[in-house]
Amino acid sequence: MLTIALPKGALLQESIARFQAIGLDFSAFLDKSNRQLQITTPNGKAQGLLVRAQDVPVYVEYGQAQLGIVGYDVLREKQADVAQLADLGFGHCRMSVAVKASSPYRSALDLPAHCRVASKFVKCARDYFNSIDLPVDIVPLYGSVELGPITGMSEAIVDLVSTGRTLQENNLMELEVLYESTARLIAHPISYRVNSDGLSDLIQQLRSPALVTI
Amino acid sequence: MLTIALPKGALLQESIARFQAIGLDFSAFLDKSNRQLQITTPNGKAQGLLVRAQDVPVYVEYGQAQLGIVGYDVLREKQADVAQLADLGFGHCRMSVAVKASSPYRSALDLPAHCRVASKFVKCARDYFNSIDLPVDIVPLYGSVELGPITGMSEAIVDLVSTGRTLQENNLMELEVLYESTARLIAHPISYRVNSDGLSDLIQQLRSPALVTI
Repeated sequence: MLTIALPKGALLQESIARFQAIGLDFSAFLDKSNRQLQITTPNGKAQGLLVRAQDVPVYVEYGQAQLGIVGYDVLREKQADVAQLADLGFGHCRMSVAVKASSPYRSALDLPAHCRVASKFVKCARDYFNSIDLPVDIVPLYGSVELGPITGMSEAIVDLVSTGRTLQENNLMELEVLYESTARLIAHPISYRVNSDGLSDLIQQLRSPALVTI
Repeated sequence: MLTIALPKGALLQESIARFQAIGLDFSAFLDKSNRQLQITTPNGKAQGLLVRAQDVPVYVEYGQAQLGIVGYDVLREKQADVAQLADLGFGHCRMSVAVKASSPYRSALDLPAHCRVASKFVKCARDYFNSIDLPVDIVPLYGSVELGPITGMSEAIVDLVSTGRTLQENNLMELEVLYESTARLIAHPISYRVNSDGLSDLIQQLRSPALVTI
């Protein structure tokens, strides 16, 4: 049976809507009383795995799920060996460099060499500062990255921004946008190529804007 | 002013109780409507930072907090350069290797060479399997590690077990206990040595069982 990895969090509701539009109902995952992480659609056609966004590419890469939905931000950070099939056009956000609004910096290049930059996206932050040839000390954090500049631990942060409300509430200011991110449809490369479980048809339907806007 | 890093999650309530017993009240962090991650005690004597458990050693290592409370499991995984001052004797849990209850394995050494082991504690898992000289493929996950054996992605997991309920609910069985973990009091090594903000007195009070059981 086809298995699909779905991301907990911000992308879940719309991800479920996209599969619902093509006849695969994983809405049981939205039920707050649900504790199951593995369910089968009522029509018995597919199985869903509810996992952390960062784990979606892992389940797909190892072939435990043939399809998955995950943000481009996670894909860039994890560099998993998966096929990126479609930009699903939802979950818009951006990866940005931000500093205290009261700081004198107006671009990332203004940051002092060897300053500290806090981020959950260590690889992405390192790649960016390498690309502008500015040596910085990346401080890896798991959450609440905005505390970096507030406590004085770091001069800047690299973090995902969607509405900008968190930055505003913490008196932070965006300096640069590294890239824009949206939800992506990914597949296990071999399953995709051998078209196991009629994967190609499903992917075609998920890609079709007519269907996905139902 | 003295700054203390407190861990979100399972250890928070008891951590706050310990500081309350020595006159530092961070109970505002327990208020569900609180959105602040940085507060000052009502007596103005200390500042608290509410951060992810994994970030506590980071704030302490970088000297942004002089003291912190965090689980031994996190300290072992992160290998931060902090002074471990006391075992606070709460937050008991253990790091274990577990497999499907229906599997034929009765010890970690029964696992097949090059099998997959899913874990959030990649360093700890790798160290353990190196120590028993069994080459395995560690699959790094961020959450719901129990899905590894359930989906067939991994033969075993290395994860934190407290009551054992999650293992039981998922038909998993503990094979080995790698180590026991409890909450630890940590300090920034230099602040501790120079006794800034009367740190030594505070640490002595936190260590004292008479006080901490109040």
